[in-house]
Amino acid sequence: MNYLHTMIRVADPEATIRFFEVLGLKEVRRMENEKGRFTLIFLAADEDMNAPGERAKAEVELTHNWDPEDYGSGRNFGHLAYRVDDIYATCQRVLDAGYTVHRPPRDGHMAFVKTPDGISIELLQNGVLEPAEPWVSMPNTGSW
Amino acid sequence: MNYLHTMIRVADPEATIRFFEVLGLKEVRRMENEKGRFTLIFLAADEDMNAPGERAKAEVELTHNWDPEDYGSGRNFGHLAYRVDDIYATCQRVLDAGYTVHRPPRDGHMAFVKTPDGISIELLQNGVLEPAEPWVSMPNTGSW
Repeated sequence: MNYLHTMIRVADPEATIRFFEVLGLKEVRRMENEKGRFTLIFLAADEDMNAPGERAKAEVELTHNWDPEDYGSGRNFGHLAYRVDDIYATCQRVLDAGYTVHRPPRDGHMAFVKTPDGISIELLQNGVLEPAEPWVSMPNTGSW
Repeated sequence: MNYLHTMIRVADPEATIRFFEVLGLKEVRRMENEKGRFTLIFLAADEDMNAPGERAKAEVELTHNWDPEDYGSGRNFGHLAYRVDDIYATCQRVLDAGYTVHRPPRDGHMAFVKTPDGISIELLQNGVLEPAEPWVSMPNTGSW
């Protein structure tokens, strides 16, 4: 069997796509369903670390229901995790784009950020970087 | 970058592992943290359809907090999706193990089941099978 995707529901698909683009994911296809009044958008890492030059097979599916609803949140779902080549560069892009790094990579290895709907994304460095500023001194923000 | 895993919190890790084993995932490693009073368990598909003979790289991380808590649930997280070789065989194993197939594969293509904590898992047939009984006549159960 094969893992295909994790589906999350999003209030503002374009805001969510912008967020994931900062991390390194891109839209790969989209399906609009007029009758069901929803849009499905699939994102994937532009290049899979395990298969250089190939788009990643693992996807995130964004479900956008056209009629607004409060999706709420629970603790049963934790996060999506990605390995990155340079966690400092990724977190800097996140900050530059105006998002919060909720758990900065003080240890050169692990960080948490959140989508516009508050879904936690774990970033894990491929290996470990030397601890470095401004990350070492950066406090946590909220929960993740 | 690389997708690594989706983390879900589970009340009963052994019950959740049994459930995922029925689908075709196996425990690949486990970490106990006495101080934090939690256990992390990683599961992966025993064989990756895209790489025959290799264990799948995409994992599910189960977090089990030793002190019981109500994790609740939200609609912001939807489901985890897997492609399977024979959706009828997988769903039959699910039934035989005493679980419910909430959305039976009436169309020979798609089914939904749920973990003991109520997390939705989508099963998608690799291609499409001819519609067949008992699936065609099997009604939905609850939500997923």
